[in-house]
Amino acid sequence: MSQNIFFNNNGPFKLNILFPKQSNSKTKIKDIKTLDKAEKFDLTFFDSLDYKNSAEKTKASCCITKESLKKYIPTTCEVITVKSVLFELAKVVSKFYPSADLDYPDNSLKKPNKSKYPGVKFGNNVLIGNNVKIGKSTLIGCNTIIEKNVSIGKSCVIGSQIMIKNSILGNNVVIQDGSKIGLKGFGFIPLKEKNLRIAHIGKVILEDNVEIGASCTIDRGSIGDTVIGKNTFLDNQVHMAHNVKVGKNCMIAGQVGFAGSSTLGDNVSIGGQAGISGHLKIGNNVKIGGGSGVVKDIPDNTTVMGYPAVPLKEFLKKN
Amino acid sequence: MSQNIFFNNNGPFKLNILFPKQSNSKTKIKDIKTLDKAEKFDLTFFDSLDYKNSAEKTKASCCITKESLKKYIPTTCEVITVKSVLFELAKVVSKFYPSADLDYPDNSLKKPNKSKYPGVKFGNNVLIGNNVKIGKSTLIGCNTIIEKNVSIGKSCVIGSQIMIKNSILGNNVVIQDGSKIGLKGFGFIPLKEKNLRIAHIGKVILEDNVEIGASCTIDRGSIGDTVIGKNTFLDNQVHMAHNVKVGKNCMIAGQVGFAGSSTLGDNVSIGGQAGISGHLKIGNNVKIGGGSGVVKDIPDNTTVMGYPAVPLKEFLKKN
Amino acid sequence: MSQNIFFNNNGPFKLNILFPKQSNSKTKIKDIKTLDKAEKFDLTFFDSLDYKNSAEKTKASCCITKESLKKYIPTTCEVITVKSVLFELAKVVSKFYPSADLDYPDNSLKKPNKSKYPGVKFGNNVLIGNNVKIGKSTLIGCNTIIEKNVSIGKSCVIGSQIMIKNSILGNNVVIQDGSKIGLKGFGFIPLKEKNLRIAHIGKVILEDNVEIGASCTIDRGSIGDTVIGKNTFLDNQVHMAHNVKVGKNCMIAGQVGFAGSSTLGDNVSIGGQAGISGHLKIGNNVKIGGGSGVVKDIPDNTTVMGYPAVPLKEFLKKN
Repeated sequence: MSQNIFFNNNGPFKLNILFPKQSNSKTKIKDIKTLDKAEKFDLTFFDSLDYKNSAEKTKASCCITKESLKKYIPTTCEVITVKSVLFELAKVVSKFYPSADLDYPDNSLKKPNKSKYPGVKFGNNVLIGNNVKIGKSTLIGCNTIIEKNVSIGKSCVIGSQIMIKNSILGNNVVIQDGSKIGLKGFGFIPLKEKNLRIAHIGKVILEDNVEIGASCTIDRGSIGDTVIGKNTFLDNQVHMAHNVKVGKNCMIAGQVGFAGSSTLGDNVSIGGQAGISGHLKIGNNVKIGGGSGVVKDIPDNTTVMGYPAVPLKEFLKKN
Repeated sequence: MSQNIFFNNNGPFKLNILFPKQSNSKTKIKDIKTLDKAEKFDLTFFDSLDYKNSAEKTKASCCITKESLKKYIPTTCEVITVKSVLFELAKVVSKFYPSADLDYPDNSLKKPNKSKYPGVKFGNNVLIGNNVKIGKSTLIGCNTIIEKNVSIGKSCVIGSQIMIKNSILGNNVVIQDGSKIGLKGFGFIPLKEKNLRIAHIGKVILEDNVEIGASCTIDRGSIGDTVIGKNTFLDNQVHMAHNVKVGKNCMIAGQVGFAGSSTLGDNVSIGGQAGISGHLKIGNNVKIGGGSGVVKDIPDNTTVMGYPAVPLKEFLKKN
Repeated sequence: MSQNIFFNNNGPFKLNILFPKQSNSKTKIKDIKTLDKAEKFDLTFFDSLDYKNSAEKTKASCCITKESLKKYIPTTCEVITVKSVLFELAKVVSKFYPSADLDYPDNSLKKPNKSKYPGVKFGNNVLIGNNVKIGKSTLIGCNTIIEKNVSIGKSCVIGSQIMIKNSILGNNVVIQDGSKIGLKGFGFIPLKEKNLRIAHIGKVILEDNVEIGASCTIDRGSIGDTVIGKNTFLDNQVHMAHNVKVGKNCMIAGQVGFAGSSTLGDNVSIGGQAGISGHLKIGNNVKIGGGSGVVKDIPDNTTVMGYPAVPLKEFLKKN
């Protein structure tokens, strides 16, 4: 899907208009994507060695990065060298997507026109935005709000008092009461008088058979997406920040918190109240004990516990 | 109360129909209960030595258990020996209660018929299901949903934007805005393609004078009930999983999390963000420090702290 | 602001009526304030040496305190010596403010009269109480409730499914979906049969440019106020208890919890899931690592981590 269905794109912009100090190219930049998703005429950004592999292979036409990282960018991609990658990114994203810096309430919300949704059962006071798609045999509870362009698959059970925006849900997805899916994440450049928000132009993808407990918050991606894989179940009050990617068949217990941009493999289980720091890579079949604080990558097939989390044997020796 | 008022029971079923491989008995099983609550013609289950005492005294007519535990079951009770107790339980519960595997929105919700609730004050946009009972002088805030068969006592103050289902509340109960009471808990058999949910046929019981803070989630029991004793107060954002039983006069601070099936005595105080693992027994007059991770039973009159939680003296020596 | 705009004050009361055993003064007490905010004809209370400096300078006409602390009270202030300061305070506050012990739903809520709010955009099903003020260009999402006397500045973006009561918001404030602002805090005197609630007569103040994430709970002050300073941003699921005061330009990540009455300086950053105990003083430019448990005051310019939180170097040495 190369076009953003949730936010209006004001582009294209010529590179020399976007970066008059750094570029005199008249290449038209159409969109902003992550290193791995960018294609020709896209702008991307590269801010940490963790993403070196993706940087070396990016197909973007232009990349914002810093002096020390620019050597990894392929020659097919024009480099814009800056001091603060995120600051420049924030400014350019807001040029393309001026309405994605905040969650402006959806003006198109209305009571559902039931003839447009055959086989869907709506509770009382449901509000649906323009162009929402809902599959057959899906149930929607009371007071739930589904904002414009959201897509929900077949045979889902969406509870009551829920908000879904900027999201694509597969089939047989279950969301329990009170959860908030697809909201803007916690991304901004701290500035003394008035922080500069990073527009969140990504979405949330919940694959088939996902279950989200009650009162969870699943933020949408900033530039990329937040993704929860098939048959992964979340308990209540889980907080998942922007850009997190969770594999298949995972079990995530109550009150677990994810900082942004971590990637989890398949069959991962996480005990209650554990916290996962940002930008980590958690392998397949990993088990994380309740209350743990994970601050490092975890290889496949590992059980960890503690704060900071260490392999289980080490934890047991200490305690 | 021997009949389930929240979920339709499709039983009785003959034992040889439920377990054709293991039984040729034509005994009619009427319901499924926990070891201690089961009576004649009920089916029960026994999966951990922690429940040995209850197993030895069960009045059930039939018990699902595993080879190593069957010796504890009284001879009055037919034993069904299986490899995975929970898996067999999940399958049989869904035969009795096919609608309890998920929280299907209540189709009977309507604006309250005020003549049926003399002395009750309703805020705007309240929705009430069939056969809901509410005592005199109870206040219900705006946008709150009370699903079918829920019972609420006298002089309660139920805030706004709340969901209550499958619950029985005493008198003078206070629930603050946004809490979700009586939802399905996080119980399922992990299966690669599609997890098998364990139907939750229990309820939530909030005794007299209980206070629940804002944005809490109190899940209903799976087979038994989740119970909060008289005059126990919970702060905001507490998560209580299925089957937890809390005594009287307890104080539970903000963001505390309970995994399932633990039992707390009376006069227990728990500091903010503490976590209580599953299937534990916490005594009377126990104090648990903020942020602690409790992974073992705690005897009466003990103060613990730390992760994992240890007696306070030990914690102070370490730190 | 010397008058309470959110709760009806039943005073004045003569001192000898309030405390017949301890006083024969006929001084009329008009209100109850904290040590630093109290003026002539106000009653105050002093329960911990932490507040000695404020006690010595209080302008209150009367102070409830205990024997060991009364020497710090200036002679201009009549001392009421008691065994339990909070117990006596709870009783007297409920005389002045009998309706502040609980969050009684606001009976004045109605659909907004749009002619009273020029330049304000309301989503569907918004409910507004009497005498609510909302500045120009502010947006209010769907199903949001704003109770009586709340004041909201210009150009705010208030999301959906939110509750705001007993609060004053500056300009450019952002609140994301599902947050609950201004509710009663977790304050009571534990009594065996029926706890005695401490009436919460304070408010929440959110200064200009504050952002509150989704599903946060920000309790109002008990006697004083809960205050979040300019340009401070909170992520999702943060719990802030009564009377907390946060400075400017702070960043508070997801699921952080604050017990009551702590004070934070400016430019403080707090990682996800950290917990801050009650009655602490956190300096300017402090950094608190994710998952930390802060149990002591922290001086300016310090980075801490761990449970209990210690200076970063110490933490790294240990782990």
